Order: sequence, then C-alpha cells, then structure tokens
Amino acid sequence: MKEECGVVGVVLPEAEPQSNSSAFQIYYGLYALQHRGQESTGITIHNGCSANSIKGMGLVPEVYVKDDLKNLTGNVGIGHVRYSTSGNSGIENCQPLVVNFKGGTVAIAHNGNLVNACELRDELESEGRIFITDSDTEVIAHLLVKQLLKHNIFDSIRQVMQRLVGSYSLTILIDGQLIAVRDPLGIKPLCIGEVEGGYAVASESVAIDTLNGKLLRDVYPGEVLFFNDGEIESYQLDNEKRSAHCVFEYIYFARPDSIIDGKLVYKVREKIGRVLADEHPVESDVVSPVPDSGITSAIGYSKESGIKYSEGLMKNRYIGRTFILPGQEMRDIAVRLKMNTISDNIDGERLILIDDSIVRGTTSKRIVNMIRDSGAKEVHARIGSPPIIAPCYLGIDMATREQLIASQNTIEGIRDMIGVDSIGYLSIDGLVEAIGINKNELCLGCLTGRYPVEIYGEECCAHLQSRLSEY
Amino acid sequence: MKEECGVVGVVLPEAEPQSNSSAFQIYYGLYALQHRGQESTGITIHNGCSANSIKGMGLVPEVYVKDDLKNLTGNVGIGHVRYSTSGNSGIENCQPLVVNFKGGTVAIAHNGNLVNACELRDELESEGRIFITDSDTEVIAHLLVKQLLKHNIFDSIRQVMQRLVGSYSLTILIDGQLIAVRDPLGIKPLCIGEVEGGYAVASESVAIDTLNGKLLRDVYPGEVLFFNDGEIESYQLDNEKRSAHCVFEYIYFARPDSIIDGKLVYKVREKIGRVLADEHPVESDVVSPVPDSGITSAIGYSKESGIKYSEGLMKNRYIGRTFILPGQEMRDIAVRLKMNTISDNIDGERLILIDDSIVRGTTSKRIVNMIRDSGAKEVHARIGSPPIIAPCYLGIDMATREQLIASQNTIEGIRDMIGVDSIGYLSIDGLVEAIGINKNELCLGCLTGRYPVEIYGEECCAHLQSRLSEY
Amino acid sequence: MKEECGVVGVVLPEAEPQSNSSAFQIYYGLYALQHRGQESTGITIHNGCSANSIKGMGLVPEVYVKDDLKNLTGNVGIGHVRYSTSGNSGIENCQPLVVNFKGGTVAIAHNGNLVNACELRDELESEGRIFITDSDTEVIAHLLVKQLLKHNIFDSIRQVMQRLVGSYSLTILIDGQLIAVRDPLGIKPLCIGEVEGGYAVASESVAIDTLNGKLLRDVYPGEVLFFNDGEIESYQLDNEKRSAHCVFEYIYFARPDSIIDGKLVYKVREKIGRVLADEHPVESDVVSPVPDSGITSAIGYSKESGIKYSEGLMKNRYIGRTFILPGQEMRDIAVRLKMNTISDNIDGERLILIDDSIVRGTTSKRIVNMIRDSGAKEVHARIGSPPIIAPCYLGIDMATREQLIASQNTIEGIRDMIGVDSIGYLSIDGLVEAIGINKNELCLGCLTGRYPVEIYGEECCAHLQSRLSEY
Amino acid sequence: MKEECGVVGVVLPEAEPQSNSSAFQIYYGLYALQHRGQESTGITIHNGCSANSIKGMGLVPEVYVKDDLKNLTGNVGIGHVRYSTSGNSGIENCQPLVVNFKGGTVAIAHNGNLVNACELRDELESEGRIFITDSDTEVIAHLLVKQLLKHNIFDSIRQVMQRLVGSYSLTILIDGQLIAVRDPLGIKPLCIGEVEGGYAVASESVAIDTLNGKLLRDVYPGEVLFFNDGEIESYQLDNEKRSAHCVFEYIYFARPDSIIDGKLVYKVREKIGRVLADEHPVESDVVSPVPDSGITSAIGYSKESGIKYSEGLMKNRYIGRTFILPGQEMRDIAVRLKMNTISDNIDGERLILIDDSIVRGTTSKRIVNMIRDSGAKEVHARIGSPPIIAPCYLGIDMATREQLIASQNTIEGIRDMIGVDSIGYLSIDGLVEAIGINKNELCLGCLTGRYPVEIYGEECCAHLQSRLSEY
Repeated sequence: MKEECGVVGVVLPEAEPQSNSSAFQIYYGLYALQHRGQESTGITIHNGCSANSIKGMGLVPEVYVKDDLKNLTGNVGIGHVRYSTSGNSGIENCQPLVVNFKGGTVAIAHNGNLVNACELRDELESEGRIFITDSDTEVIAHLLVKQLLKHNIFDSIRQVMQRLVGSYSLTILIDGQLIAVRDPLGIKPLCIGEVEGGYAVASESVAIDTLNGKLLRDVYPGEVLFFNDGEIESYQLDNEKRSAHCVFEYIYFARPDSIIDGKLVYKVREKIGRVLADEHPVESDVVSPVPDSGITSAIGYSKESGIKYSEGLMKNRYIGRTFILPGQEMRDIAVRLKMNTISDNIDGERLILIDDSIVRGTTSKRIVNMIRDSGAKEVHARIGSPPIIAPCYLGIDMATREQLIASQNTIEGIRDMIGVDSIGYLSIDGLVEAIGINKNELCLGCLTGRYPVEIYGEECCAHLQSRLSEY
Repeated sequence: MKEECGVVGVVLPEAEPQSNSSAFQIYYGLYALQHRGQESTGITIHNGCSANSIKGMGLVPEVYVKDDLKNLTGNVGIGHVRYSTSGNSGIENCQPLVVNFKGGTVAIAHNGNLVNACELRDELESEGRIFITDSDTEVIAHLLVKQLLKHNIFDSIRQVMQRLVGSYSLTILIDGQLIAVRDPLGIKPLCIGEVEGGYAVASESVAIDTLNGKLLRDVYPGEVLFFNDGEIESYQLDNEKRSAHCVFEYIYFARPDSIIDGKLVYKVREKIGRVLADEHPVESDVVSPVPDSGITSAIGYSKESGIKYSEGLMKNRYIGRTFILPGQEMRDIAVRLKMNTISDNIDGERLILIDDSIVRGTTSKRIVNMIRDSGAKEVHARIGSPPIIAPCYLGIDMATREQLIASQNTIEGIRDMIGVDSIGYLSIDGLVEAIGINKNELCLGCLTGRYPVEIYGEECCAHLQSRLSEY
Repeated sequence: MKEECGVVGVVLPEAEPQSNSSAFQIYYGLYALQHRGQESTGITIHNGCSANSIKGMGLVPEVYVKDDLKNLTGNVGIGHVRYSTSGNSGIENCQPLVVNFKGGTVAIAHNGNLVNACELRDELESEGRIFITDSDTEVIAHLLVKQLLKHNIFDSIRQVMQRLVGSYSLTILIDGQLIAVRDPLGIKPLCIGEVEGGYAVASESVAIDTLNGKLLRDVYPGEVLFFNDGEIESYQLDNEKRSAHCVFEYIYFARPDSIIDGKLVYKVREKIGRVLADEHPVESDVVSPVPDSGITSAIGYSKESGIKYSEGLMKNRYIGRTFILPGQEMRDIAVRLKMNTISDNIDGERLILIDDSIVRGTTSKRIVNMIRDSGAKEVHARIGSPPIIAPCYLGIDMATREQLIASQNTIEGIRDMIGVDSIGYLSIDGLVEAIGINKNELCLGCLTGRYPVEIYGEECCAHLQSRLSEY
Repeated sequence: MKEECGVVGVVLPEAEPQSNSSAFQIYYGLYALQHRGQESTGITIHNGCSANSIKGMGLVPEVYVKDDLKNLTGNVGIGHVRYSTSGNSGIENCQPLVVNFKGGTVAIAHNGNLVNACELRDELESEGRIFITDSDTEVIAHLLVKQLLKHNIFDSIRQVMQRLVGSYSLTILIDGQLIAVRDPLGIKPLCIGEVEGGYAVASESVAIDTLNGKLLRDVYPGEVLFFNDGEIESYQLDNEKRSAHCVFEYIYFARPDSIIDGKLVYKVREKIGRVLADEHPVESDVVSPVPDSGITSAIGYSKESGIKYSEGLMKNRYIGRTFILPGQEMRDIAVRLKMNTISDNIDGERLILIDDSIVRGTTSKRIVNMIRDSGAKEVHARIGSPPIIAPCYLGIDMATREQLIASQNTIEGIRDMIGVDSIGYLSIDGLVEAIGINKNELCLGCLTGRYPVEIYGEECCAHLQSRLSEY
C-alpha cells in the first residue's frame, strides 16, 4: 500500500514522570508535518509501564481532544500522520501500529514504501502468521518481533533492515525505548533535534523548529539511533554510505522551510527557478507561479531572468470537501473554487507560468485556460522538474505510467495538450545542480525509470547494481 | 478480557449475488441481540471475492449508516455486538476480527471467554507471533490459521477446539464459507434457524424470530456446522455429549422470549418465581418486581402464592449517559432517574420484592430505601437465583469475590445490609428444577465455586474431572 | 404547530449564587419527562444578571455536555423537551424561547396547543410584528411583552391568558422571576413540588420524584404561580373553577408513576382494565398486554376477571432509528424488531389482548397476525379507551379523521380489519369512572368530537358553551 | 454586535423551476467569501412558494451536506458567511435571518454594522416588539416589515435606509424577489455580475469569478437593485453620490483577486508597497513579507526599491484549533505552529519586514523575535497602513483604543515594543494614493478617529457633516 506519511518521536528524560509534555510535543510536531498526510493520525506514549495511544481518522486538530491528550502521560512516544493513496483507509491502518509480543510491546510509525512487502508477507503467511492491517508496517512488526525473541534490539533491527527493500524512515518504541531508523539509501527524510528536556526525531526539520528545538543533523542512510538517558547512540547498518534521496521531496512534497539532507528546500526550489531560467529562457513580460508550490521557483526564475515577478493566480485558502454537480459548467466552477486569476496581472501580458511539476496534466490545462480567458497574450510553461515518466514505488503517490502525461506524450504533445505557447522542463542535470547533491546519491526513479532498488519489471540504477546484489 | 457478546451468521444461497440481504438480515439480527452488548458492533460480509466490514463503537442504530449497509453486498456474513468489561474498549477490539493469511481470509465473531487465553497467547508469542488486539478472538485466529495451513477446515477447527479451554460460541467466515462452532460444554448459547433464502445462526433464538425465520434447534455442545449450498453439514468434536450450560443466561442475561437449549427463558423465569414462592413463603400483601428483570419471576411468585401482583417500581425507559454532580443528594437523584416508586402500590403494604439476583448489593439497598420511603410496612426480598459466591470465568462480567456481597456475608448479613425484613434466595436445586435441565449439564460455577473447566486456583466440578484431564 | 412537550421550572433561593444546582435539577427533571418529547430540549438559567441557554436537537443525554451544564450558573431556570409533530423541526423552534424586550428578558417553555394561534398571529402580524419561529410560544411571547410594557407581571399574564384559546402549561422566566401558568381548563398537566433548596414545577410529578422532592399539588386550572424568595404566591384567573383535563394523559401519554390532577396514572390504568373486564367479559385462557402501554390495564383486567395474566409479547428495549429495505418480507421484519411473541404463552390459548388505544390500526393488525402465527386459538382485543373518532386540537398528535380507524369504520369493521375474534372498547362512562374525575371536568374531544374550547368547524361541549362565549 | 460577514444573492430566471442551481451557485459563492467569516453560514432559497434554509455553525464545507443542498430547489436565494466578534455566537444569530410577517416572508443577509442599532432597538422595543437574536439584522427586519405593511417594496426599503446609520450591504428576499442594497456611503463592498442563467450579487467580485460569471459593476452607494425576470432595476436613495469606502478592505480584509469599487485589491496592495518604499526607504539586503497578508506589498516594495524579494517566513497551511499547555515554552511553540522562519534567507541579512498593519502588536513582537533568533542583522518594519489609532464602528473587528498599540504609543514606542531597528508606517496620503480613490470618498475612521457617520463620543468627518445632519 502506497502511503505518504510523516513520523515523529520524542524522548524527554528530564521531564516529570507523570508529564504529558511528550504527548504535546508530538502533537505540535505532527501539526508541523500535517502536509505529509491528512487522512489519519496517531500518538503512542510509553509511561514506563505500558503504551497508550490516541488514533483517529482526520486532521490533527480534529483527532486529538485536549483532555485525552492531557492524560497521555509518559516521557517517550512516537506519532504519525498518514495519507493513504490506496482505497483502504480504515481505522485499522491508522498508525502507530502497536503490537504485543513475548518480550513486551512494539510500536512503529513508518514513512515509506517497501518494494518487497508482498514477498515478505507471503513468507510470513507461509509460517502461519496472520495480518490484520494492509500496511507494510505490520510486515516490519512481524519481522522485528521474530528477531527480538532471538537477538538484542540492535541486532534485531539490523536483521530486519537486511530483509527490507524500499524506503523506510521509522520511529519505533520497544517498550520505553525510542529508536529511529532510516533505510540504507536514505530515501525518505528523517532528522534529529534537541528540544527542551530531551530529543526529537522527525520526518522534517520544521517539526523541530516548531518545538523551538535545535536541528542537530539528518539521520544517516542506514543509521539506527537509540535514545537513552540523555544520550544518543548511533549504529550504522554497513560502512558503505550510499544514498538515494528522493528528489520529489525537494520538488514538491516537503515544506520549503525544511532542511533535508543538509539542503534547505526553499533554496533548492529557488535555484530550480534560476536553472530553469538559464535552460529555458523566453522573451516575456511577467513570471507568475502556480500557487503555492510554484512560488519559490518563480521568484528564482524572476531573479535570474530579470523578468518581473507577478502573481497571476490566487488560491482560495479555505477549500475543503466540496460537492460538485454534474455538468461541464459546474466542473469549471470547481476549478475556480480553488484558484482564481488576477486579470490585471495577466491581461495583455506574455506570461511565464512556473509550476513545480506536471503529473497528469489535467489541472494544468484548466489553469492555462483560465489564464488565456484573462487575456494573456502568450503563456509559456516552465516546469520545476524533469518530465515524470515512470511511477514511484518508494513512497510518493504519483500515478501509473498510463496516467502520466509525460510517459505517454512527447514534450510537443504535452505543450499542445495543455495549450501553452511553449513549454520547458528542467533537465535532470539542472535538478541535480539545484539540489546540490551528487547525482548518484539521489533517487531519480520517476524521472529516469531506473530505480535505486530492484523492482520487478523495472530497470535498476547501474551504479547501485553491485550493491543490490548483496541483498 | 471478559466480554459479554452476541454473534450472528447468515448465509443466503438463494439471494442474488449482488444482494445486500445478508447485511440487512445480520443488522436486524444484531438489533435483536443488542441486550448482549452495547459497546461496539460489526458486520463482515463475503461477496465471493473479498470480505468487507463495517465496525464501530456504539449501538447498532448508531454504527450503521443506510448507504454503507446497502453497499455491503454478498450472500454470506457474520455479525457481532460486544460489551467489554475490561477498560480496554478501543476500536481495534471491535469484532468480527478479520485476518488475512496464506490461504485467504478468516473472520471470527466470538461470544465467550477462554480460560487459557493467557497460556495460549504466551505460547503463540513464544513462536514470535504478535498481537494487535486484547481479545481472545485473536488467539483463536492464530491457532486456526496455523492449522489451516496444514489441514482441511474441519480438521483445523477440531484441532483448535482441542486447545481451547473455556466458553466459545463462534461464527466464522473462512473466505466465503460460514461455520458455526459451539464449545464442547455448550456453555454459551448458539442456535440455528431457517430464514427466507437460507440459514441463520445466532446467540439467541430471538434473532431468528426477528428475521421471521424458523428456529431449527440449538447447536450441540462440541458441534461444528458448515453451511454449504442450501445444506448444513454437522460434525461433532467427540461422541461424549456432556454439557455445562450457563445458568445466568436463564437467570438474567438472555431475553425472556429466547429459547436456549430447548428451554424458553420466560418459562424458566416464571418457574423460578413459583419455586421461590414454595421455598420462601411469607405472609404479605403484594408481590412486586424490580423491573425489568424481576417481572416474570414476580408473576410466577404471585400465581403460585396467590398473593396479588402489583408494580411498585417504574423504570425510566429513556436513561442514557448521565452526569451526576458530587454529593449524596445528587447521587440519590441518580438512582431516582432510573427507577421510581408508585407509592399507592406500596404505602401501608407488606411487600414481597422480587429481583433476579444480587451481585454487589448496592443498588438493592437504594431500591429498598426508596420503597421504605414510600411507606411499605414490610419488605421481603425474594431473589430468583442462589447466592452468587464466586466469580465467572466463562463470559459473564460478575465481579471479584471481594465485591460479591454473598461471598463476603451471611444471608442474615445481606438482609441487614440491604435493609429488608426477610430475604429468601432460590436454592440451587430450585433453580435446576426451574430450568428443567439435569444439574450435571449446567454450569453453576458462580453459585458453587466449582467450575466445569479447570481454572487455576479454583475447584473443578467432580463429574467433569475425568473429562477435563483429557485436554 | 402541534407539539407534545414537557416543561420544568426550578428556583433554589437557598443555593449559592454561583451554584449550578438549578441547571442540574432541571436536567434531571427533563430526564424524567423525556417520554413527553424526544426531538429537542433546552434549559435556560437566569443568574441574576442575564439569561443563558443550552439547546439542541436530540435526547437529553445527547444535548447536554457536562462542562457546559456546569457553567450554567444561577438560582432559577426553566427547561423543555419537545416532540414536534409537524415537519418543521428546526433548531429555531427549540425551546425555551428567549426574547429580549424593552423591560428585559422573557423565556418561555410551553406544553400545549393554542387553537387560535393563527388568528393571534394574524393580528400580531397586522401590527407589523414578525415571527422567526413556527411555534405558538412566539405568539405568547409577543402578547406577553405587549402587556408587560403597560402592566405589572400578573396583570400582563392575566391579559394574555384572556386572549389564548387552547391548552397551555407554561414555565416562564421574566428576568430572574419564575412563573408557572396553567390554562383555565387545566387541559395539560402541571404540578409543583418542594425540592432541596427551593421549589420545582413540572409537567408531571415524576420529575419532582426524581429530584427527591415532595409533590405539593397540581397547579390549578387558570392559576398563575409566582416563586419568590422561598414563597409561592398564587393568583387565580377567575373564580369559576371549570376544568377539562386531557384524558389521553391517563390513557397513554403520561408515565404511570405520575400523579396528575390528584389521580395516580397507574391506578387509573389498572382500573381501566377492571372496568373493561366488567364491560367486555369473554371466556378465555389468558390476558396479555401489548407492552408497555397495555401492561397495567392487563393486570387490572386479569385481577377483575380472574383470568390469568401472561406475557405473550416481548418488546425489544434497544430499538432506535432502523433502516428498512423495501419489500413485504423486510417490513414484517421491522415489526418483529420491536415486538416478539412468546409462543409458549400463546400457542393453543384463547387470548385477551389488552391495548391502551387504537389510532390508525395498522400496528394492531400486524401484532394480531404475529399472535395468530404463534398458535393462538382465539384473539379477543380489549381496548383501554373508547374509540378515537375525532382529532385532538389541544396538544396530542393523533391523526386526521381520515386516518383514524374508528372515525371511518364501525366496531365490527375494525374487528375484521385487525383480524380479531371479538373486540371491546372501554365506554366513555367506564373511562370516566376509571379516572375518577367528574365527566364535565375532562376533555373528551377525541372520543366525542365535542371540545371544551371553540374550534372552527367542530362542535363545542354543551356545558362549556356559556363560558366560552365570555371570551 | 460587531460582525465581519460576506453576503451572496443569486437569481436564475432561466433555470428549471425545480432546479437546485441557485443553491449550488450560492454555495460556491460562499466558498469564495469564506475569508469574510468562518463561524457560521446559511443559505435561504425561495421556490416560488416558500423559503427554505440550511444554516449551521462552522465552515462552508462543514455545514452543507450534499443531499440537503440538492433538495434546496428554487430559482432565487441568498447566502451568508459570518464571523461574530462578540461572544455571542449561538445558532440563533446565524444568517440569513428569515422572518414571517403579514405579507409573507422576508429573508435578510447583512454585512456591516449599524451605529444606531441600540437606539433603533430601544425604539422598536418601546413599541412592544421583541428580539430573539442579538444581530442588527433583526432590527432591519423589524423596520422593513413595518414599512412593507404600508408601502411598496422600494418605498419601504427607502424608508428603512433613512433610519439606518452605519454600514450595510444587504441581500434580501421578499418572498421570491431578490433585492440588493448598499448603504448610502458604500462603506462595505457589494457588486453584481452576470452568471449562467441569471445574475449574482456578492460582497466581493471573487464570488462572481468563481461562478464563472462576468463582473458587471459595483452596487453604488445608496443604490437599491431589484432583480426581476432577467432585468435589473436600479433605484438610488438620493442623488448626492457621496461615499466612504472602507480602506481596511483594501489593506487587509478582502481577497487580493477582488475588484472593489473599481479597484483591484492586488494592485492597491502592490502600490502600497511601492509608496512605502518611497516614503520609508532604508538600506537593506532583503524585503520579506509576513505571510500571507504582507506578500503583495512586499513584492511592490521590492520592485520599487530594487531590494531583492525573499521569503523569510513560512506559514503552516494546516492550522486549526490547537490546545496550548500553560507555560512560556509552550506559548512560544504555539507561535511557531503558525509561522516558521527560513533561516537561510534571514541569517546575516538586513531585513525589511512588510506587514499589512499592526493592531495590538503582540504577534508582531513574537515574529520579530523569531527573525532575530534566525540571525537577522537588522530588522526594519514597514507597515502597509497608517497607524490604527481608533476603533472601527462600521464592521471590522479591530479592538478598543486601549488595545490598539498605536493609540497608546508613539511610533518610537512601538518600534521599541516590537523590537525592530526602524519602523515606517504608510502615510494616509500614501494609502489614498495607493487605493486611487478620492480621499473624501474613503472611510478613514480607524486611522484618523473621524468617522463618516455620527457616532456618540466620536468626531465626524468635516466634509460629511452637512450630510449627516439630514438624517
């Protein structure tokens, strides 16, 4: 099951034993990560004796009730926000997943996607094991518990990691012990920070910022962190530090104020705009973003090109679930509910429209239509990512190849379909330059069709082949 | 975890493949069993392809939404209502429990309590298995799945039954196959009926009545029933038919219009009243029940004794969750919210007050106070069960020995504590006579402290000793 | 708008100024009156300075949240439960109705129905007044406020009462002053009691009982009561004490444990059974009630006739909103959800079936069918009220003449339609005897078609003609 | 009661009689105006026969349920979103206010604030009238209905307008007739547009845009519009067109993509930034907005000054109700939940921080602290409005003089309190220049303490004195 998620872990050795600070810090941290998942959320706190949870469907402010949160006492805990992309969004898939086993309790919050979840599940089922949820997390829980009966915690986790193929940033509670794990390629982000009274680990540094904490560093690919009495112990799965950081976190998914693997997302997006200006210059009057995701790159494009920045589109900040009546007229209204043009900034202008990426292209087409209706003389699309030509198997809900406009069409075809005068996609090298991380250390799967892990029916990155054969 | 529950199973081979009749019949059946559990409820339907569920906390009319129910198509399914007596009432404990395993899907609805759940759980955990819920049902699921990988369904169930000690009436779906199972002692009730288009199995015959069906018979102790294309196949765990039917179902728990193990509960309760009149006659003016559970026995007592039946207490039909302010005055109000006296039927009278049983005695005391305040000249308590002196380990939430008034006090002591002029408990032999089933075929554990299964620290029924040693 | 409702008023001069006891006492009182209205409820408390309310759609336990109730401080207040019989059940019709006017605040809780509401509304609208709700209560509020600007409170209320035609039991707060008003004919019930710290007034005495209070007496027809510092002042609208108490409160609507106009409802119903036995004897084996409303009369019939009392029908205590699928089969199930037969008490028997009344006859027919299916040899219907031949205009939601089975058919016709072997209705004189109040002091409108107030197109009671002409 | 609100009206003469297009168009229009009020919302539709409403507390997507909306048929209706600034936010204050009167039904949706509501209310109360809500709208309803009994609709409205002092943009339904009214000074915005099948009127043009309609023009100050069969009739209250448009709509309240009184809000805000750059230049490295309201002015400041635009602050898009624990640490977290710094854009920089306005100054101080913590070398506040020195009586919830930082402090004092190196407020003339409307046609009350209408205890604008004396 493909899931976009956010995870948090907090340990406060200096807090009072009956304090609920951990619960509240996790709650605030989840607020900061709400953009990573809006479907369900949960917090599990260990009070030295037992693990207690609050979980529910909905947004962070909807799920947690003040008095419940107040009663969730204990000095250590983990939290999760989740957006399931498959149809199965039942409450039983809500994380943290808490399981009881021979040795105690294990709670797991997971961001990522296992490529070999089905094989592992088959294997576990062949041993007579049962599955109550649809999540990869339950697979991890089974594997971990099997090891914990034989080995110490670190060895157990190492054994499990050697079985998992895919992306996983995990916060784990084994009884009262907080552990953070990042997959050997560091695909999904995970970072640690110092907070009042202890430490926090989170999918993005904004969660640390929100807690008024100090970002210490990213968790390294393949690193396992144990949070003990005021100390952090680090173990490395193997000594070869190879990585394959997800580029889509920089392009779209992460918050701009997060620092991921040492790179401030805002700066990457601004640089994307600058590189785009260099790669695809065009004589024009204004640079205008598709809000909110295109804003930073549009600022960069404007600065680099010297073409003035202007907002041609406005977003309605209050859009929730809407009912749309059948009929074309009504569907057009639905688009206008979310986004409106500022005709004065468009009318008679040659406009460069900056978007972060194009997935299926349907929204792009409607936006371009609105801009043309507002009198734009020319519309030049500049896209802050290379064409997305292949699906993501590692944690971003993209689409199938059939649905991806760039998988099915030439650049010219796309230009015509969305109705722009010209279109320019960022090059892969341009993206790499903007991110500022070595190309071999990034996952470019959705842009190249070559993945950093072995996926049945897909090609693998050449430079990782040798490594993959090890597992 | 001690749980009082109700289960239903329905198979409609004659219904249309895309029919939702099964879901609706289960829904109506659960309505009829609502008295067996008000905390949560669930329905699982198999549509020939997959098992789909609706589950939730609350009453049957609160959990199911019409459109959801309409979309729950398929010809076979099971349902559950549950009242958890432990603190842990989370959504994850809501049944049917649906698990995926190597061979497919197993869904289980369980009424009863396993005495050896902890040992079985320990054993399963030692194999590295994990538990996500607190319920005995997950233990059964693990055991069953382990067998299903090696044996056919019947052999698997038989193997599992040989491991389980305690009470269990189960409705099971293994993929699209409905199976009903009753423990070898037939402790908790389970019966089968013919309904429009197929068969239904349920904890009580009222569910069959509600479906306008025809009660066929009780499921036999140790019987396993397979519902195939319009046929019912029966297998018997062993040939020795011994039983230990729960007497508390007759005394209090079941609906009076149910027929359990061949005995109409109404008739049993009326007979209890008659026997009580014979065993504990007293010169008096009126016989009055504690509503609703004492009504039928009070009618019986009145008929046998010739003392006129009169209602001295009225129950408020609309009581839900209430907030009670601190203070004695307010607590007294709380009692009066639920029950009120009809002074005209009490004032100046010598009153025989019939209650079904006394557990802790606190409510009895408050009721007697109200009756005395209404001017009763004498109050004679007559109790439709023998003194409850020991806890139930087999599915009824009684209380601990410390909490049981009859475990801690003499009859005279109880009389004084609840403030009546005389008290008369039904004798065990009187109860057996009223039920009309051989004493050796009843579970009298809470009345004798001798249980039909081996329970650590408790005495076992002599006549079952030999049998128990087999397992 | 026809409404069945319950009202409460509480004044606690001895309570602390910042106490919330009034709010809680009203809350408990409304619980006791929940049977009078399940659609919406409200409480208004005056704290010496301002009137604050909690109102909402739903049952008492659903509408009030503990913390809100705790914060509703003040020593005096009124409450309301309401079942609207018209389609218009919006939140704006939820009572108490609180209005601000020149002199302060008026809050009104009303049980009853004004026959001349339309004329009064027209008249008020002709003065340019506006109406925000559909309720008669807003009409009363307008009339009252008009007077309050000119007269003192008592004169104002007297003036208003002279304009109102119909039934009204009112609890009113004029700023911090609690007032209780009963219409000149005392159609709907209202009584006063002493409670801890002050006084309570309520539609039925069970509310006083629930508050552990002492019933003082009924409010007299045409009486206005002022609750001052520990004192009750009484004013009488005129000296002619005529009354027209609603008989349907005794027959069906009120709780059996209430005392209304000096008569215990339970005793009336039991007597109804006795009179019925005398008026319509039949050789038979058992007397069985339609639960719950027929129970008390069945006990009376049994005692009088010497024919044994036996419960042939059982009611499901847990019925809420249910979804019924189309189709006859499913509709039959719907009936069985609510009521089930106990075949053992029916099979082979000649059965006297006691019901409190027959309105449309559809439910009766289904119940008789079920009883015949359970093997009854004969079914003899005995009805605890005379035939209902005319609508109620004074506060009970009956039906139109077209819908009333007894308005459209002969007794023989009804017998055949519901499928019984014989049918016997209580005579009007029998009813009067059972109630024990002079015939001229009862409203028998629905039974005779002659009403105690002038209603357009209907006949008026002869003995009240002279009186009516006064207004 | 001070209220910020948004109103909509739609008439679709070309739609099918049983169409629900009006309801859906109003629903979409309210979505576009959600920023004007998030507390409650309502829609009233007239179907030629009666007016039906859906109202509720909460956001547009929370209040309306698809099926309810579908059943709200009729060709004409009005809608409302509301943010009450007083404590009284009960459901009864939810608009449209629908009242029944002699001649039919009047429904009113109101944006604005009457200065003489209390006097009018007193006067109406002196006539014996009653008030059920706290809103000014009920005052308008009373006045209107009084006139409607004597005059035709237009004369009635004219009479009412002559009594009202303050701001009011109204959409009114008198039975099936849609009317739009704007106060004689045109204080709050209101505009009309053509939409598919008819016309729409709305607080802001974005609602017209969302409906894919064509903005026709603003409603003129003192104009009354009747929407008849495909025609719009316009009446003018008097011939003197004077106006006093609220400047705060341009500064902060309206959406940037709205055109209000002929001026695109976006352009005004951008110009504010440019003027600010001219009025308060400062040597600096970056211009950064307080998001979202400062963004457009910051772009303008950057363009005019040539200092580069950079985002130093990021807003969390997902903030809802949050629970904050006591303690300074936790309160700081609460601020960081809403806003986070991007240190890379701040560290070591001299930063010009653009905010739209400063009301109480507490948030500003916290933001400046965050910016300094992120390493800013200098922070120069530039404020897109003149100092707010006086309260608003005409529809914007500002604060009292005691709460307004600029009413209580000198500019230097403010600079020190919020902790910036320099502060520059826009001048009043600069604001007027940016808006591009004659100074005498704007309401500058909160900036000058001189108001366009007579307000007890406040000064009046000299140029409007003569006019005011007329009323």
